Amino acid sequence: MKSIRKMFTSLRGKAAVLVVAASAAGLAHARSPLVLMSDFGLADGAVAAMHGVALGVDPQLSVSDLTHEIPDFDIWAGAYRLYQTADYWPQGTVFVSVVDPGVGTQRKSIVLKTANGRFFVGPDNGLFTLIAERDGVAEVREIDERVNRLPGSAESYTFHGRDVYAYTGARLSSGQIGFEQVGPRLDNASITLLRHPAARIEDGRIKGGIPVLDVKYGNVWTDIPKPLFEKLAIRPHDRVTVRLRKAGSLVAEVTAPFESSFGQVPKGGELVYVNSLLNVALAVNQGNFAKVHGIESGPDWEVEIAKAP
Amino acid sequence: MKSIRKMFTSLRGKAAVLVVAASAAGLAHARSPLVLMSDFGLADGAVAAMHGVALGVDPQLSVSDLTHEIPDFDIWAGAYRLYQTADYWPQGTVFVSVVDPGVGTQRKSIVLKTANGRFFVGPDNGLFTLIAERDGVAEVREIDERVNRLPGSAESYTFHGRDVYAYTGARLSSGQIGFEQVGPRLDNASITLLRHPAARIEDGRIKGGIPVLDVKYGNVWTDIPKPLFEKLAIRPHDRVTVRLRKAGSLVAEVTAPFESSFGQVPKGGELVYVNSLLNVALAVNQGNFAKVHGIESGPDWEVEIAKAP
Amino acid sequence: MKSIRKMFTSLRGKAAVLVVAASAAGLAHARSPLVLMSDFGLADGAVAAMHGVALGVDPQLSVSDLTHEIPDFDIWAGAYRLYQTADYWPQGTVFVSVVDPGVGTQRKSIVLKTANGRFFVGPDNGLFTLIAERDGVAEVREIDERVNRLPGSAESYTFHGRDVYAYTGARLSSGQIGFEQVGPRLDNASITLLRHPAARIEDGRIKGGIPVLDVKYGNVWTDIPKPLFEKLAIRPHDRVTVRLRKAGSLVAEVTAPFESSFGQVPKGGELVYVNSLLNVALAVNQGNFAKVHGIESGPDWEVEIAKAP
Repeated sequence: MKSIRKMFTSLRGKAAVLVVAASAAGLAHARSPLVLMSDFGLADGAVAAMHGVALGVDPQLSVSDLTHEIPDFDIWAGAYRLYQTADYWPQGTVFVSVVDPGVGTQRKSIVLKTANGRFFVGPDNGLFTLIAERDGVAEVREIDERVNRLPGSAESYTFHGRDVYAYTGARLSSGQIGFEQVGPRLDNASITLLRHPAARIEDGRIKGGIPVLDVKYGNVWTDIPKPLFEKLAIRPHDRVTVRLRKAGSLVAEVTAPFESSFGQVPKGGELVYVNSLLNVALAVNQGNFAKVHGIESGPDWEVEIAKAP
Repeated sequence: MKSIRKMFTSLRGKAAVLVVAASAAGLAHARSPLVLMSDFGLADGAVAAMHGVALGVDPQLSVSDLTHEIPDFDIWAGAYRLYQTADYWPQGTVFVSVVDPGVGTQRKSIVLKTANGRFFVGPDNGLFTLIAERDGVAEVREIDERVNRLPGSAESYTFHGRDVYAYTGARLSSGQIGFEQVGPRLDNASITLLRHPAARIEDGRIKGGIPVLDVKYGNVWTDIPKPLFEKLAIRPHDRVTVRLRKAGSLVAEVTAPFESSFGQVPKGGELVYVNSLLNVALAVNQGNFAKVHGIESGPDWEVEIAKAP
Repeated sequence: MKSIRKMFTSLRGKAAVLVVAASAAGLAHARSPLVLMSDFGLADGAVAAMHGVALGVDPQLSVSDLTHEIPDFDIWAGAYRLYQTADYWPQGTVFVSVVDPGVGTQRKSIVLKTANGRFFVGPDNGLFTLIAERDGVAEVREIDERVNRLPGSAESYTFHGRDVYAYTGARLSSGQIGFEQVGPRLDNASITLLRHPAARIEDGRIKGGIPVLDVKYGNVWTDIPKPLFEKLAIRPHDRVTVRLRKAGSLVAEVTAPFESSFGQVPKGGELVYVNSLLNVALAVNQGNFAKVHGIESGPDWEVEIAKAP
């Protein structure tokens, strides 16, 4: 009996050790991925400092990069990259987004929780426009920097990405704080949204915008969603006429077949297709549509699509 | 006795919790690293979407990047980067490789298992040529997209890298599927291989190719392996004559010493050396051999090496 | 009693399994982050080979990148990036740093432990100058390549970053070796330091250097620390006169307000501020100070700062 008790005590000790070890290893609570985006580039140490702060909060965090090549201060491009990728990350993922021309001014620092349970940390300057519109806003909180700021960073005013956003994002994704501990709740309707027109049908044509280029390949991505496009009753291989205008002036008019993917036209051939975000897009197979036709993106640009006669 | 039984039951409960926790944390089965390569660049969200899909499959996966700066559609360069790096990754590593000009055509999607136990996921377009030749093919399977495709992505035809390859690669490296669950087995001899000449000795000279440049530094890497080079009985500091031809025309002729590394010639000096893949290479110490002599890489290029007279 | 003993034995078995599993999962000893820096760029496979070697040592390591875009062979820039970021990483972090024009020569390979407990692995060529000066050197050891070299790499002389530094760094950060197993201890005073002047006050002006530019935005970062600047008794919004000289010749003279951050001057306005490393810096709000005024960085450059009259 005594020996059993002794073995038992020894076993209980081991179990306790395991509980502690498991807890130390983070088995006790789930972590969410932390994803960083900025316009910092990777040539200096800014992004690495953010990674370091995050792993300082919790060395077992999974920290990934969305991109750090957002064009300088281009809030709209940042908004689009979040829109392009967030859906492919698990629920609970925390996105730290720093495109922040107003760092050090009175613009608020916020965490936005979407209706589908992802978190977006950054300046309230419009970066979260497309996410908020597509996914819906569950709740917004202003970051209380008195508690959610890297200890020792109080004298630094120019790098909120490191001192406030990476730190708060890491605390949230590690489970060290809950969403309600970010800071006071804001009115959902109070957040800054960038204005942009929505795609629509007029006179049997679809009019839409060019929010972004598929920069690497020069494909032109529109904001026309597949269901809207389908109202034109265009079938695979049908020819489509596309007019592209900048500030109202025609820049290019192209007629090309509607195909499911690049390989269905010869190399160098143009096509209209549904891109990987299920919006209508324009491309040259293994070529650069935007360069060939002088197309850029942004609020000045308009695209008009109709079935070719 | 009762109290022991009670303690025991309580302890058993804890142990069970630990088993569950350990299993949830993935201690029950081993994960392999997942490595992503593409020609997407890092400026937009494409690579981040792939990372997100992988961590959505298993948030504890270790996901790394080989490079995403393969020149557009350059299957050969992709094949070389796999050849250059795969050996340095542990057995079981899963490489997702997307250089895919034929996305959306009938080219197959495959997973190739090498004889030394690494997995290569991607299009069957020649990307795995150099890996297959060096490491040997244990088995090839075609990806069955009915089961190995990101749920909800059925309408997307242009981003197999995200919807099929990252998803299948993550399932494989997390252990959620075994290799045999990828899809039906293919004939090993059926996979697409790019043709390229092998280095050889002719008349006391070695003739070989220039598969790739060491782009950052401008060093010229040949496909002449150290054991073949050793047949010329060239010793350290011996002078070597190198002729470089494009499409049969002489572009440069250089005589330089054979050295073990850069620092053994003065800054600006030329040398012949054995590179980090144990192939013969040409360099200027802290300079750019390729730029100085106008050398590029690819199937048009030939190099001829002999002991200087 | 028998049944209890039986249950007990079974339970003990499970606990043993858990101990083994926990140990296999690395719960038994703590890992430190491993951070890689180089001038290799990300276009080829060099950095990926280093990641692979590290995960081959221990698949559960957390491996991050500081930057791989250090200008070719620019030891000073590498030294600055370590100085810029190391403080933001947890104690125990291991930095593998490869800017190594002398690879293959007699320059030593070392691991430096700072007084605050971080480890720096790389060539002894001055890369650790700024870290050593700011953080203090606890101990330096020369890497014994007979034991701390990737098995099978003995014939490779040109890629210490992969064969020696990533391998040794990974062993150290995984806890597979302790610091004393790196190799023999060196005299702390024996390590290579780059010479550079220190900022100082002369005749009521501060003279300092320009160690680096904030390359992405064109801000000019000086080596003048905030406490030294404060001796000029310049208050927020006070105007400051800055003279920038190269090799003694005046390149630019600017008078601008001292502000806490960019947003406090209009777009295009110049300002003097304290940067994220708490040194004095010069910027144009949403513009490029360095380009506008033709400023570069390095030992030739001098900056002189005084309160405007």
